[in-house]
Amino acid sequence: MAPRTELLLFLAARAQQIQDTIAPALEAGRIVISDRYSDSSLAYQAYAGGLPVEAVEQVVEFATDNLWPDLTLLLDVPPEVGLARQANRNRMENKGMEFHRRVREGFLEQWRRHPERIRLVNAARPLAEVQTEVFHHVEAFLR
Amino acid sequence: MAPRTELLLFLAARAQQIQDTIAPALEAGRIVISDRYSDSSLAYQAYAGGLPVEAVEQVVEFATDNLWPDLTLLLDVPPEVGLARQANRNRMENKGMEFHRRVREGFLEQWRRHPERIRLVNAARPLAEVQTEVFHHVEAFLR
Repeated sequence: MAPRTELLLFLAARAQQIQDTIAPALEAGRIVISDRYSDSSLAYQAYAGGLPVEAVEQVVEFATDNLWPDLTLLLDVPPEVGLARQANRNRMENKGMEFHRRVREGFLEQWRRHPERIRLVNAARPLAEVQTEVFHHVEAFLR
Repeated sequence: MAPRTELLLFLAARAQQIQDTIAPALEAGRIVISDRYSDSSLAYQAYAGGLPVEAVEQVVEFATDNLWPDLTLLLDVPPEVGLARQANRNRMENKGMEFHRRVREGFLEQWRRHPERIRLVNAARPLAEVQTEVFHHVEAFLR
């Protein structure tokens, strides 16, 4: 698949999900929790996939009509740890260690560029500690 | 379907077609003839569909890696004539006369913006006359 095609298909799905689910929930005053969003497009398709970062950002902002999360939790683990935790791997997860190192670097770069929005959580620690830190960040944000 | 989703799906297909078919043919020195391309995205999704023209242009240029035709022939007919000629209508063609008037206006606007690339052909005339004019434009361009 062409790298641009992959990005455009992910963004087509995201645009539809925003119209059908996310935007109506926000309009109703709900809190929306999403597993992966625009930072993933930057990490996977731009930083790791090689598409130009600025151009991907433009297309992402078009697809989402510039809708970004108020708070993003980046659960960071070394790729070796992350992949070892998974029972079933999908197409992305089969892409090899070097690709996943670039994905991780991409997410960390997004965190460095958007520290006001993204909180970095060390997810290599035991589950209970990770949960406590996530709870802390969410509570601080909501307060 | 969300208007942005529709555009992104068309562009995902186009990006793949460029990688698989158009770019290799151009690299081999061939002439590529395409029925519809980026001007259609502008006419259908921006001018007629209501998405912002500048933003659609940016996304189109990303999807195609800024690949535009050297010569575009705009076969122009009033929507009434065009729809009357068709035996089977698809999803687009069922959208109603007002939509098709905006599509036509969109194509004509693209022609006004890019007169160096787009040739306007009055396709409401008999087939033989249209063919002669198309032949004339292509011959003049190739010479």
